[in-house]
Amino acid sequence: MLAMPKKHPQTRSAVMRQESLRIAVVDTTFARVDMAKEVLAEFARSPWKVEAVRVTVPGMKDLPVACKRLLDDGCALAIALAWVGGERLDEQCAHEANLGLQWAQLMTNKHILGVFFHESETRVPGEQRRIARERAREHAQNALWMLFAPDELQKRAGTGQRQGGEDAGPLA
Amino acid sequence: MLAMPKKHPQTRSAVMRQESLRIAVVDTTFARVDMAKEVLAEFARSPWKVEAVRVTVPGMKDLPVACKRLLDDGCALAIALAWVGGERLDEQCAHEANLGLQWAQLMTNKHILGVFFHESETRVPGEQRRIARERAREHAQNALWMLFAPDELQKRAGTGQRQGGEDAGPLA
Amino acid sequence: MLAMPKKHPQTRSAVMRQESLRIAVVDTTFARVDMAKEVLAEFARSPWKVEAVRVTVPGMKDLPVACKRLLDDGCALAIALAWVGGERLDEQCAHEANLGLQWAQLMTNKHILGVFFHESETRVPGEQRRIARERAREHAQNALWMLFAPDELQKRAGTGQRQGGEDAGPLA
Amino acid sequence: MLAMPKKHPQTRSAVMRQESLRIAVVDTTFARVDMAKEVLAEFARSPWKVEAVRVTVPGMKDLPVACKRLLDDGCALAIALAWVGGERLDEQCAHEANLGLQWAQLMTNKHILGVFFHESETRVPGEQRRIARERAREHAQNALWMLFAPDELQKRAGTGQRQGGEDAGPLA
Amino acid sequence: MLAMPKKHPQTRSAVMRQESLRIAVVDTTFARVDMAKEVLAEFARSPWKVEAVRVTVPGMKDLPVACKRLLDDGCALAIALAWVGGERLDEQCAHEANLGLQWAQLMTNKHILGVFFHESETRVPGEQRRIARERAREHAQNALWMLFAPDELQKRAGTGQRQGGEDAGPLA
Repeated sequence: MLAMPKKHPQTRSAVMRQESLRIAVVDTTFARVDMAKEVLAEFARSPWKVEAVRVTVPGMKDLPVACKRLLDDGCALAIALAWVGGERLDEQCAHEANLGLQWAQLMTNKHILGVFFHESETRVPGEQRRIARERAREHAQNALWMLFAPDELQKRAGTGQRQGGEDAGPLA
Repeated sequence: MLAMPKKHPQTRSAVMRQESLRIAVVDTTFARVDMAKEVLAEFARSPWKVEAVRVTVPGMKDLPVACKRLLDDGCALAIALAWVGGERLDEQCAHEANLGLQWAQLMTNKHILGVFFHESETRVPGEQRRIARERAREHAQNALWMLFAPDELQKRAGTGQRQGGEDAGPLA
Repeated sequence: MLAMPKKHPQTRSAVMRQESLRIAVVDTTFARVDMAKEVLAEFARSPWKVEAVRVTVPGMKDLPVACKRLLDDGCALAIALAWVGGERLDEQCAHEANLGLQWAQLMTNKHILGVFFHESETRVPGEQRRIARERAREHAQNALWMLFAPDELQKRAGTGQRQGGEDAGPLA
Repeated sequence: MLAMPKKHPQTRSAVMRQESLRIAVVDTTFARVDMAKEVLAEFARSPWKVEAVRVTVPGMKDLPVACKRLLDDGCALAIALAWVGGERLDEQCAHEANLGLQWAQLMTNKHILGVFFHESETRVPGEQRRIARERAREHAQNALWMLFAPDELQKRAGTGQRQGGEDAGPLA
Repeated sequence: MLAMPKKHPQTRSAVMRQESLRIAVVDTTFARVDMAKEVLAEFARSPWKVEAVRVTVPGMKDLPVACKRLLDDGCALAIALAWVGGERLDEQCAHEANLGLQWAQLMTNKHILGVFFHESETRVPGEQRRIARERAREHAQNALWMLFAPDELQKRAGTGQRQGGEDAGPLA
């Protein structure tokens, strides 16, 4: 009863031909931590061939169209890295950026993994840095699994995975 | 005066030819309960032939485009399974995911049943698990009715049905 | 200086040829009152020939794509009937459903009259039932005027009409 | 360095040929003041030839698709007149209507001037009437300037203009 | 592993041919400070040839379609200048305008830099003026970098840049 999902044509063919895939990595000058560096390091450790295409924009509301342009140009997936300040207006911007990312994904039929660190999560600078970096690395891993090893995600379904913090785990 | 709704062409023909229909079942690694398992079990008990196409994504904001890709690839309907954490940011994500699911439906002209469990519904782990599972099963039933037996829904119109809890019932 | 609005081609021709128009009536199993019944009764009392195409979906977030499918299949207008529960999450769902209805209208270039009863309007069951029914009937009337007698609406412009309650009336 | 903006082709040609332009004026039966009357009076006083195409819909969420249909039928611009009640649900409706107006504009590439009076601005009926009327007139003026005399707007850039109340003025 | 992002075709060719690029500068009569003047001054100081195409609209909700029309007419990027009043309704308008700007960008595949000053940032008029002007200038600089020198942005990635205030700086 359980069919294999068919990969989206352009993704599947690239994987099948064992070519390297291009992944867009888009970050901001607003962020206080270089999250893209973590993503690139994770890609470098990967067993899969990945070509990162990096673009930097001023702020998080500039991420959706930047990702869409790179996906339109042939990237298989995008990672959107954002740092959300501690004011109400910053949270409002994050909401608008996230809705833009939804549309960009539906218009391109490709995934954009949003990696947003919110200052409201913790006010301790060292913790902010640690969470932002770890979240970036763990979502880089997710991106690779989505393109090359979807089974890795499926075997973790419903297990309470978290990025940039301890996993919640499955409800026993 | 009351006309039979015409089924959407691709759905109708499949039902008429008695072929098995493909239904997308998309869940997350974030969830703490394996809701997809419940959906698949419900399909297995069904009198109708259904082929489940399962994909797992990291979090709920990844559901809309994952559903859209599977609907574009020929699935007749999608079930989007999500677990919403107890923080304000989790509720914000759920809102963004739900808007994405609205657009994905309108772009594909097919239904996506959103099955979201919110931790704000109850803090008791055993109850959380029970509600999430029951809601998944009851929406799997709804999905089957929508495709194979729309009259089952129509005879329950205005009767206060609830998924994952006691029905509110009709106002007498 | 005041020109007659040109009817949308497909609507105008049907009215001119005196054919019966098809109107989609979409409701939910979630609702606690059979609002569709009121709409159908209002159509039956109408001097105009109308064919109702009724579909029932589980909940209000399923209304937009259900309406869009029926409008794409040739209905001239849709009536979306919803019952909004008393919790914050119910209001959130209503907001998402309403945005979906906006997009569905703009994508089809046809009107969808949203008839939403909110439990927050009154907690008295008898009042809830009365408001929901009356609102459904009055919007069925609006739907007929929009298709067959737009002058009836124009002569009520700016007069504080309300559906499911006393009219506010014009500011004298 | 400062180039003249090129008018949108269909607008520009109409202005150049000195033909009368058609402007959509859409209002509601919900409103408690006849705001369309003020717009028409302002057009009548105008030195420019304008043909108003008026449509009345039940409520503000019906405005976006009504405007879009008229813009698709050739109107050069639309004025959407709304009265927002004093309850939280009314404000929610206004937000949904406004988002619909954003999409309608982007889909048609034409302006829709939203003229919304909110009861939350003042509870004094006489003031409500005065503000609603004055706002309608001032936006009718803006509509004319946008189509026929964009320089009138540009020379007021950054000067704190307000519609339906005293201008805030420029910060000296 | 790090590939050069491919510029969007129409942008790239213009830059390569060393032609002047057209940038849309759209502002409002609502604003209390002439922010467009600051943008034009910044362009004048620029080493790159830029042609500004300026349009003024009444308020911030008129910005998205105005930007989209200019981008459709060939501008390479738009700067949307807005002043957000101090009331709750003003913030609501800003949110709606920002969502419109997201869609306009995704529909045109070009960037629109939103430069919004909010009165809630400070109630001191002199400070309001200073922030609005400085933000406009710094985003004009960002616009130029995005088109002519994307490396300038990339070397500032994750360094806590702010427009219209002191930079937050990188987390050491």
